[in-house]
Amino acid sequence: MAEQHDAVEVITTKRDGGRLSDSMVDWVVDAYTRGVVADEQMSALAMAILLNGMDRDEIARWTAAMIASGERMDFSGLSRPTADKHSTGGVGDKITLPLAPLVAACGVAVPQLSGRGLGHTGGTLDKLEAIPGWRAALSNAEMLAQLESVGAVICAAGDELAPADKKLYALRDVTGTVEAIPLIASSIMSKKIAEGTGSLVLDVKCGTGAFMKDEDDARELAETMVALGTDAGVHTVALLTAMSTPLGLTAGNAVEVEESVEVLAGGGPADVVELTLALAREMLAGAGKDDVDPADKLADGSAMDVWKAMIRAQDGDPDASLPVARESHVVNAPTSGVLTRLDALAVGTAAWRLGAGRSRKEDPVQAGAGVRWHARPGDSVEEGEPLLTLLTDEPERFDRALAALEGGYDIEPDGSAYDPGSIVIDRIGS
Amino acid sequence: MAEQHDAVEVITTKRDGGRLSDSMVDWVVDAYTRGVVADEQMSALAMAILLNGMDRDEIARWTAAMIASGERMDFSGLSRPTADKHSTGGVGDKITLPLAPLVAACGVAVPQLSGRGLGHTGGTLDKLEAIPGWRAALSNAEMLAQLESVGAVICAAGDELAPADKKLYALRDVTGTVEAIPLIASSIMSKKIAEGTGSLVLDVKCGTGAFMKDEDDARELAETMVALGTDAGVHTVALLTAMSTPLGLTAGNAVEVEESVEVLAGGGPADVVELTLALAREMLAGAGKDDVDPADKLADGSAMDVWKAMIRAQDGDPDASLPVARESHVVNAPTSGVLTRLDALAVGTAAWRLGAGRSRKEDPVQAGAGVRWHARPGDSVEEGEPLLTLLTDEPERFDRALAALEGGYDIEPDGSAYDPGSIVIDRIGS
Repeated sequence: MAEQHDAVEVITTKRDGGRLSDSMVDWVVDAYTRGVVADEQMSALAMAILLNGMDRDEIARWTAAMIASGERMDFSGLSRPTADKHSTGGVGDKITLPLAPLVAACGVAVPQLSGRGLGHTGGTLDKLEAIPGWRAALSNAEMLAQLESVGAVICAAGDELAPADKKLYALRDVTGTVEAIPLIASSIMSKKIAEGTGSLVLDVKCGTGAFMKDEDDARELAETMVALGTDAGVHTVALLTAMSTPLGLTAGNAVEVEESVEVLAGGGPADVVELTLALAREMLAGAGKDDVDPADKLADGSAMDVWKAMIRAQDGDPDASLPVARESHVVNAPTSGVLTRLDALAVGTAAWRLGAGRSRKEDPVQAGAGVRWHARPGDSVEEGEPLLTLLTDEPERFDRALAALEGGYDIEPDGSAYDPGSIVIDRIGS
Repeated sequence: MAEQHDAVEVITTKRDGGRLSDSMVDWVVDAYTRGVVADEQMSALAMAILLNGMDRDEIARWTAAMIASGERMDFSGLSRPTADKHSTGGVGDKITLPLAPLVAACGVAVPQLSGRGLGHTGGTLDKLEAIPGWRAALSNAEMLAQLESVGAVICAAGDELAPADKKLYALRDVTGTVEAIPLIASSIMSKKIAEGTGSLVLDVKCGTGAFMKDEDDARELAETMVALGTDAGVHTVALLTAMSTPLGLTAGNAVEVEESVEVLAGGGPADVVELTLALAREMLAGAGKDDVDPADKLADGSAMDVWKAMIRAQDGDPDASLPVARESHVVNAPTSGVLTRLDALAVGTAAWRLGAGRSRKEDPVQAGAGVRWHARPGDSVEEGEPLLTLLTDEPERFDRALAALEGGYDIEPDGSAYDPGSIVIDRIGS
């Protein structure tokens, strides 16, 4: 039983730049979950946390309190070690789809609890739901059974996992308090720790299409999360990755599934393959399986086998045709030259406006909507040839999607302005 | 019709240190009053305002938007000029009671909309309600008629005056956002400007018993409010006054009415008389009546005549006996010497705990409860002689009141530690 506090006392402590005691954190998270602390009190506290920060110990306690608000899962009975990945979200970020079966094919179980998309970044569950029959909701028993039999599961987090986080996230979303690093870190890590994975790799993105535009902020978030995971006994590593250019050649739902299957078949865009392998190697190392080379499992078809088994185990048909958008609109290259920039935020916003994403949690998404681009930065393009294809079931959406793409790419005659950079900017963790 | 905005856009603008545009302010205040912006959004905005501030133009616009949320009163039809006073609240601050009839006796109408107390500072309406029969609620027509016939009215503000402020104040109270100077200033000034007074004197208190403990904060608040009033066409002056020692010799309800009547009868504690006259002179000057000396109106009984007429006009009996607490407890001086400190917060908290004030808006107050002190700082006291008398109807309240008084006063053998200071610290305004 947490010591009794008062909401105004907790709020004013943080407002005035103080640190919240352990018992204040325990009390306020528990009282908020039970409805004793009101939404308007928690939002004022969230704003004070955003502006005045929290130290490492406060964040760790806050994370522990959110874990304590719900159930914890236990994978210790599995015959294999477990590893999970979390991405902070980007445009065209379908990496979970090939990654989970790939790592499972290497002998590590992957319990991947995922979410739906909100805003310009897509959601892993939305993408998989483009596959006919596939279902996101599994019971804990189904999840455990599938982890043992198939080795990989991608499903929705149950309501009992960190319910405080669920409630607080919905509140932050409408109160301008999403961007608080202590709250982002504790939100992500409370679910991952409660989920019970043995090791965890964080893909912390920065750039125009990421939640963190700024590398310093992304690094701070990554370091905070690695410390939280490590302190909780989870082997945790973060890769800081670039998200100013969208990943691969597609952003949407069915189109990203299609691209993921290409990767599992041994092909696919080079950047998607590169990042998938980099994350797979970290997950395998974290699970003590760094003797296996995941590239072999793409080449020999075993990752594809796990993918199909994983989709079938959740009632999906991996061989069925994927939904196709009813309407398409092609944007041709206005000049010839080298594509030197394709902005992730512009592409993500266009895909969202075409119907691939949602503005409110209760909105549906279109399985076929999205954007395909026919060149990646560094590629040559010819005037009048297709540069982007916009896809939607509702042609009235094209105008606003085109507006989002305005100024979203550069073509230079000689391409000298192109800086390829690297996808993995840094690695944080032991 | 205000331009359309989005709550998160407004919140994040202030959160990130930006200034709110006029149309953002108009929209958010109106939308909050109508319930379109939710409490949890407004509390996050209030915290961002508290921590990141507002410039003078933003505060002026916010004040105007709160005024526009309700009705405005109009005293221009009165045969006399109008002047009003507002105190930021202190312990033993009964000044409104003698001041309003005194200024009216000098030929200036005083429309004094007052409030009830919350916490350790008393409320003017609570004090007057100790008078048998007296009623605080008047219609606008009754208020106007009384201003014309009697010249002074002290009553509750109607629900239609700045309803946005009423709603926002209740929210700030539970979300740790009361202490935002822009919001305090706009809360006070929106009501005073909407009330329609021609001139206004602000009694901005600082010290242990005041809302603003710090002189710099009090000065900033005073300057902000004077600028707001002046810009709105109200002749506005502020006196910065000391509130580390309680005013007069009583804190409570009936006991403060009694002391006020003593002042109106030409007696009363010197500090109460001094501050009453200082504020009266400012009000008269603001209303263009600085040829009248208010001290004469205390001496010749005309202020007392207005007092009695004012109480009678609101169904009170100015000659009735006032309620007396059923129980009393005397604290004797522990040593002989000079009383060098009597802490306003300690006395105010004791009076509150004895039943003179309330913790929640819906709590009743005791008319007879409070504290009397038998010496003021600078006075000599004798060991074993009464220093303080605690009054309440419920003797179980004495313990917590005595606890509040612990360490709340100093008696020095030679009194050399006593610094009388002055009540009026500074005057702000033209």
